[in-house]
This record gives sequence, C-alpha cells and structure tokens, in this order.
Amino acid sequence: MASLKISLAQINFTIGDFEGNTSKIADTLFTAKRAGIDLVVFSELAVCGYMPEDLLDFPWFIDKCEQSLEAVAESCQGISAIVGGVMRQSGVGKQLQNVACFMQNGRIEKVIAKTLLPTYDVFSEARYFQAASSNEIIVVKDTKIGIAICEDLWHHYNSFEYEKNPIEELIEQGAELIINPSASPYYVGKEELRNKVFQEQSLKYQVPIVHVNQLGMHTELLFDGRSKVYDSNGTKIISLPAYEEANFSFQFENQQIKTDGKTWNDFPTEIADLYDTLIFGIRDYFKKMGFTKAVLGSSGGIDSALVQTLASKALGAENVLAVLMPSKYSSEGSISDAIALSENLGNSYHVLPITEVHQAYEQTLVSIFQDTAVGLAEENIQARSRAILLMAISNKFGNILLNTSNKSEMAVGYSTLYGDLCGSLSVIGDVYKTKVYELCHYINQTTTIIPQNIIEKEPSAELRPDQKDSDSLPEYAVLDSILRLYIEEQRGLDEIIMEGYDPTMVQKIIEMVNRNEYKRYQAPPIIKVSSKSFGRGRSMPLVAKYQ
Amino acid sequence: MASLKISLAQINFTIGDFEGNTSKIADTLFTAKRAGIDLVVFSELAVCGYMPEDLLDFPWFIDKCEQSLEAVAESCQGISAIVGGVMRQSGVGKQLQNVACFMQNGRIEKVIAKTLLPTYDVFSEARYFQAASSNEIIVVKDTKIGIAICEDLWHHYNSFEYEKNPIEELIEQGAELIINPSASPYYVGKEELRNKVFQEQSLKYQVPIVHVNQLGMHTELLFDGRSKVYDSNGTKIISLPAYEEANFSFQFENQQIKTDGKTWNDFPTEIADLYDTLIFGIRDYFKKMGFTKAVLGSSGGIDSALVQTLASKALGAENVLAVLMPSKYSSEGSISDAIALSENLGNSYHVLPITEVHQAYEQTLVSIFQDTAVGLAEENIQARSRAILLMAISNKFGNILLNTSNKSEMAVGYSTLYGDLCGSLSVIGDVYKTKVYELCHYINQTTTIIPQNIIEKEPSAELRPDQKDSDSLPEYAVLDSILRLYIEEQRGLDEIIMEGYDPTMVQKIIEMVNRNEYKRYQAPPIIKVSSKSFGRGRSMPLVAKYQ
Repeated sequence: MASLKISLAQINFTIGDFEGNTSKIADTLFTAKRAGIDLVVFSELAVCGYMPEDLLDFPWFIDKCEQSLEAVAESCQGISAIVGGVMRQSGVGKQLQNVACFMQNGRIEKVIAKTLLPTYDVFSEARYFQAASSNEIIVVKDTKIGIAICEDLWHHYNSFEYEKNPIEELIEQGAELIINPSASPYYVGKEELRNKVFQEQSLKYQVPIVHVNQLGMHTELLFDGRSKVYDSNGTKIISLPAYEEANFSFQFENQQIKTDGKTWNDFPTEIADLYDTLIFGIRDYFKKMGFTKAVLGSSGGIDSALVQTLASKALGAENVLAVLMPSKYSSEGSISDAIALSENLGNSYHVLPITEVHQAYEQTLVSIFQDTAVGLAEENIQARSRAILLMAISNKFGNILLNTSNKSEMAVGYSTLYGDLCGSLSVIGDVYKTKVYELCHYINQTTTIIPQNIIEKEPSAELRPDQKDSDSLPEYAVLDSILRLYIEEQRGLDEIIMEGYDPTMVQKIIEMVNRNEYKRYQAPPIIKVSSKSFGRGRSMPLVAKYQ
Repeated sequence: MASLKISLAQINFTIGDFEGNTSKIADTLFTAKRAGIDLVVFSELAVCGYMPEDLLDFPWFIDKCEQSLEAVAESCQGISAIVGGVMRQSGVGKQLQNVACFMQNGRIEKVIAKTLLPTYDVFSEARYFQAASSNEIIVVKDTKIGIAICEDLWHHYNSFEYEKNPIEELIEQGAELIINPSASPYYVGKEELRNKVFQEQSLKYQVPIVHVNQLGMHTELLFDGRSKVYDSNGTKIISLPAYEEANFSFQFENQQIKTDGKTWNDFPTEIADLYDTLIFGIRDYFKKMGFTKAVLGSSGGIDSALVQTLASKALGAENVLAVLMPSKYSSEGSISDAIALSENLGNSYHVLPITEVHQAYEQTLVSIFQDTAVGLAEENIQARSRAILLMAISNKFGNILLNTSNKSEMAVGYSTLYGDLCGSLSVIGDVYKTKVYELCHYINQTTTIIPQNIIEKEPSAELRPDQKDSDSLPEYAVLDSILRLYIEEQRGLDEIIMEGYDPTMVQKIIEMVNRNEYKRYQAPPIIKVSSKSFGRGRSMPLVAKYQ
C-alpha cells in the first residue's frame, strides 16, 4: 500500500543569499529525516529566493544557483525533496528555466521546469525563462506525483486562460497528487482567489493539492506564506500560518490526506490581516536590509501617525524616532497631538521647527522671487526642507526614513517630490486614505494609541493658512472609489462616469493621476497590498499624450 | 511585369496621441497617393506609438487603437498601406496582439501579428501580447510580400536564437520582399548590429528588406529613425536620416530596388552621433511633454557644463537657465568658470549662495548634531539645499530641472539622493565620465564653448575642503572599464579580476554599484544611449544579499 509522509517547508528566503538559503534547506531536511519524513517540499526558487530579476543576467549567479541545487541534493540521503531554483537549458530560446528539482539518493533525479510563466503586474518571468515544452510526473515510493510550479496550477482564473494546461498533462499520466511549489505574493483578497483556484482544480481533477508558498518581504513583493493542502474533494485540510516560518507534515495514504496535530489557521478579518501584513513588511524589509532603526516625520496627521504606530510594533518603540517639524502654518494641535502619539507609543522625538530654514530659503531666493505671488514653490520648500532634515538625521545616525504617503495622495499627486515623497520604504503607499482610517480605528479598538484628535481632525497638508485636503479634492470615500476603479480595475473615464460619479470630478481626478506619473516614477518602493500598486507592477509611459 | 512603388514613412509618433498620429498617417497617405505611390509602410505600433506599456491594460485604449486603424484604412482608397497598431484576438492567452494591418480598398484586408515578442532589457512585449501562431504573405499588385514586424527579423543575433523563424515561413510562401515595420531603439553600436542583421538576412534568403523605423524620444527609449532598404545581395541601397521625419520611395520591379534622388545618409563618428542623439533626446522630450524652458545647477564642473551646452543647443540658449549655488567649499574658479560658460552659451544665470541656508540647517540641527563628527550628513545637506533651490525655481517659473549626473557617478552612488540626483530628465545618466570628456572636446573642436578650465580641473564634488573624486575612486578610465564590464557585459567579480584589474579595487567598485541600487530606484528617467542603461531596462532587487 502506497504511503508517503510529506512535509511542507514554509521558509523565509533571501534573494541571492545562497549560503543562508541552502543552510535553511539543509537544516529542514536534517530535522525532517529524523522525524521520518519521506518527502519535503520547498517553495519556488528556494535556493535563490523569488525573484532575483536581472541578477539572472549574471552567469555567476546561475552558477551559484546550480551549485546550490547540487549541494542540497547531496544531503538528500534517505529522504527526498522538491527544491526550486534556476537552471540552464540547452535548447533555443531563453537560456534559463524556473525549475523544481526532485532530489533523492544524493542527487537531482529529475528536473521539472515551469510551463506557465506569469508576465503581468509584478511578474516578468518571460523576461528570463524558457517555458517547459512538456510535463512529466515523478514517482516517490510508488506514489505518482505531478509537480506544478506556482502559475502552472493557475491555467484558468478570472477571465484569463493560458494556451497550455500542465495539470491535464500530469493527470493523464496518472498523477495521484499535485505538488505546487509557489511564490504567490500577497494582496488583500488574494487568499480568497487562491482558495477558489485550488478548490476548483482539486475538485475538477479529483486530486489533492499541496501548495507550499514562500514567505518574506522582497522589495515590492510580499509573500505571506499560508501554505496549504486540499483533498481531492476540494476541501482545505491544512493551512499553515501567515508571516512565520513553519513546517508541517501529513501522511498520504490510499490517496487520502491524513494529519494529526494542529492543521488549521483561521483567516483574520481583512483589516487585521492588512495590519499584520504591513507590520511584517516593515520588519522583514529592515531585517533583510540589515537595518534596525527608523525615522519619520511626525506631522500630527493621520498618515504619519499610522506609519509611526506600525513601525513601533514592527521594530520596537525604542527603534523609532519621530521628528516634529512645525512651520508657521502648523496648528498648535498638530504639535501636541504628535507629541502625545510619541508618548503613547514610547518613541523618542525631536522638535525641529523649519521656520529658520524656510526664512533662509526666502532670503536666498528674494532677488528672483520678488514680485511673484506666493504659491506652490513656497509650499514645496517647506515639504522639502523637512525631507532634508529627516535625511540628515538618517545620514548621521543610520535611521532609515519611512515614507508616510498614502495611496490616495500618491495617486493624485498630493505630495511633494523630494519632499514628503522621500523615504527608503513606503509603508502605506498602497493603502487608500479610507483604509488608513480603518486601520487607525482597528489599532485604537481597545486602548487609545493614536490620539483621537489625529483621527478626527480634517486632513490638511498645512502648507498654507487654513488649508484643507477637501479644498481641492472630493471627500476620500468618493475619491478612493474612483481611484480604485481607475487603478485597480483599469476602467476608463466614460466607464467610471457611468457608475454615477460627477463627470467633471472624474475627469479632474483622472487627469491628476495621469499628470503625476512623473512623481511616482521617482517614489520609494511600496509594500504591495493591493492587486495593483504603484511601482514596477504598474509601468506607465511618462512621455505620452492621453486622456 | 510586377512593379510596385513603395514609400517608407519615418514619422515621430507620440504614445497615446491617436488624433495626432492618425492625422500624420493620413497626411502621408494623401501626399503619397498624389505622388503615385502604391504602398506606404509605417513603423511598428504607428497609431498608438511604441510603447504604451500599461496603457494597454485599459480597454478604452485598445478601442481607440482599433478605431484608429479602421479610420486610417478608410482613407486607403487607391493606395495601399501597412500600418502598425494593437488589436484584440479571440483565442486563449494574452488578449492583444502587436499587429501590422495591410490596408487597401478602404479597409483592413489582412492583419499580420508579430511572432517574436522581445522581452528583455527595455522590452516587455510578452507582458501584453500573444504571439502569432503562423505567418502569411500578402500580395500587392502581383508582388508577394512578407511582413516581419521588428523582432520577427531578428530570429538569431548575438548568441540568442528564438524557437521560431518567421522569415523562413514567409520565404517558403514565396515572399519576394520582406517589409519590416519597426520600433528599434538607439544605442551606441546599435546601427552596426542592425546592418549586420539585415545584411545577413537579405543575403541568406536572397530577398530585399525594407526596414521602417520609428523616430522619437519616449520616456527611456529613443528611436533614431534611420529607416533603410537592402537589396537581395545584402547591400544597403537606401538609408534615411537620423532624428528627422522623412519619406522616401523606390520602385520594386523584377525583384530589383530602383531609386532616384538622394538615397544615402552617412553615419557620423560615434561621438558626433552621441552628441546628436542627446540633443534630439532633450528636444523631443521637451516637445512631447509640452515644456519649453529648462533649469540646471551649474557647478563649474564638467558634467553640468556638458548638460548646459547640450540643452542650449536643443532648446535654444534663451530657454536655459543656469543656477550657480556656491558654498564655502566652492573654489573661486568654479564660480568664474560657470559664469564664463553661461556667457559663452548666452544663457541667463543666477548666483544663489547656499551659505545662509546651510547655516540655518546647522542651526536647526545643532541640538541633535552637537558632539558628532562632521561627515556625510553635512555634505548631503549642501547637495540637497541646491536641489530645493532648483526645484523652487522650477515650481515658480515652469523651468524643467535637468539632471546632470553621469553614468559613472550614478553607478557607484557618487551622487546625493534628493540632491544632485533630482531632475525630470537625466541627460547624461547613460554616459560614462570618459565619454563626457570626449563630448566636451568634440563640442570645443572649433570654438571654445566650454571653458578649458572646466575640462582640465580635477573632478570634485566640492562638498568638503579640497575634496577630489580620485580620493575615493580610481581614475575614470579604469573605473569606466570596470563598470562597463559589470553593467553592460554582466561579468562577475572573478571574471573582471581575470581581465587584470586589482581585485580589491574591483570588489570595492562592485560593492558600491550594488549598495547604491536604492538611489537609482528613485532616479529620474535617463536618455538611453547604451545597450544597458539604468532605469526600467535594468531591474535589480533591492531586498537581496549578493556579492
């Protein structure tokens, strides 16, 4: 009777860190062997991390990748493993393939290449890889296993359908189990989509699915883990936690999944999930970059308050430095609210008024600016003066500057390039203002951490007397709805107006989004939490003329 | 006897400007018809411009594209045309195709889709398009013509080979002529590569080739035009000029190319070509963005001097404003050299010392910075103070800030983020320092425009007393050679050391390049003039750990 003990290895890999990654893999194999595991499954591109991008253009990088796979294979004595990586292929076309190596008896017994190469949004696999031309099952202890690397299981989803269907080929060859080593990035709603796809596929082909996902924050991509196992009826049997490394094993016997111990992790509410995600994103970004301390501008507004709170949770209150930089337009309330926040969180803070710097600029420019009306130029000097102070502190003490712009602002260009658009990491650049409020309410649900004043005051950039965001923008609920239709759903002007919004307002907002592509071109990397974030996954031409 | 009068239409299209683009196409057709032309060939993606990138995700954009193709077809009465664009396809896979429409009798008679979709460097066509599954010839007045869209003619070049060879299919069907509507971007050395490929292909298949290239500056891509015709012996018969719109017709009779009039444009020297390219890049960028005036920081150094000279040539001396912003570390010479340059060029200039602003920052930060050593933080305050002044002038008067960093500096991070890395357009961000010198010598060859002092003085950022670039970097000839091996040729550390360079120095330089990816992530768009420029064509992970 075929019986197989399979383990899911959900690991946080670092791109390019062959030594660290293979050491984690070897440790896992060592432990698994002692636990009597037959087969350990690792995530996609395990040895090099997903996604090395143009590091793949360097031959030494591929050499290291191949060497690492060989080295890992050597340790597969008395245990089998499926380990992802990149290997060269000898045919025409792209010279590399995204592969899963089936290892046992101290060597790579079979190399399975990926067939469906995602090339949309943040994915650009066709840039690097040659697709597999055919699929072949492997046999482990009499069990026929089909390996479908990540997208290979996503032949058909939403309205999109690929030309090939690797699963069908594997099922025809008698696959009793589909193993799906993945690097499936997070966004709000992604887990529902995954569940739908895995459920449909396991039901359709009456085959259990083992999905092992990568974990970790990689530049703009964040992997949540949540590896899982479905039985052949489309029922989720095992679900690994989000945002932590985990191993979990099950028995595959008579085509049944058998488990003992805890096998289930509930999915949190959407807002709790978003909160956890952002904290993990900050923490893992800092950890992988070798940073410990952060700095940010604390304006007394809701965006910086949220980022400061998230950063304190992620890095520890003692590692977050708040800098208050009031100008003559700052309200008294802003300063006291910002101080109250830092005190609630236990962060150090400095107060550095920009009055003197601002005056020096005015003085320096007086010969040129005399007889001109005060306007945008003067407002931006303030925002940029603050950025210089923050960067000076960053340069001096090594604190990494966190950007505090939200997605609504970044969309309409309601932010100053080289001013509040500065930073090493944009924490909430993929979070609309309405969600910023929700997150703050969530944070405050038991104890008031973010002072109520900050949440309740009307949003203002405070760059001129009595300025309010609503002076030039509709209320955020309306704005965010329109932005979501334009950015996430790629609706056009006419289609959005058809939804019942005021035509003039829709036109104005779309024009603002388009006109401000140049600012986003130079913006920091953003923690991606939506299906379409600004950054490399949304590539718009700057030199263009369109609606 | 089959005889056909064919015209090459080399036009500067704007991305997304359907009205402007189709109007240019219609004008060309109207004139061609009166001149007795049978067939007019336009470049790739003519109606929408190459490359609309993620604008292609918007259904309205595709609608406009298809409508524009239909509208152009209607005007093809008594004349035929080959017009590039994007159309939907009804099969599985990507829903769009990159097509060339064969138009006559007032309608689209045949749609030819592209087979080979470049997806490397700046190209990402597999992100958007489904490849053609087969190729079919068209027949125009008894002449059998094969249409091969751009890359379709590049089945094999350098060491790369595609799986399919569209030309072979077309030749098998009896194609007597290959028409190659293209969007082939410029870089130094590209024209030689093109000549090699076209010559080889026409010789191999004994078939004439008509290559019609796009013209224009499109964000990071610059198209030089230089459309050309090869006879079936691999001889270049016609060569259209670079950097200007042009029409040229020839008679195709008995499989021979017959021309009258001027048919040849000599290729300039490499440095003259680079000079022309950068000037065209600035000019066309400004024109398409609707800008007229530029501003830049004039340091008295060679980089800003070159950019100021190029901008004056591109936009007119009266449209370039130089801003001198001396600090206490600026030499007297720097100021007088910068003034001499502006006077030579006829540019307006302002002198805005940053002393006062710098003092205000020191004063503001004194409580935090006291007892710390003066260093990078203080140096960067200077660079960033200058950026604020320049951006203030830009905001106030509408002058667009030109970035003056060269490729060597951008590579090793010898530039300040939010300081001298600011700007709307990086003019020489793809030009190594050694080429900067060559360009300045070229500019000065008949008259001294750039003061000799500027060219001869030792490079320095002048951010601290007696600072010299060579304090921390090898001489530029060595540095640039190493950078070229690393960036353009993707050689690794060991391979570069094998070329005979000092190991410690190579390691230091590579580490500097790697460590500064985060700065380039937020850098302005660069005029691409090399086979591998920084920007979207070189996508490196930030969160990574590698050599």
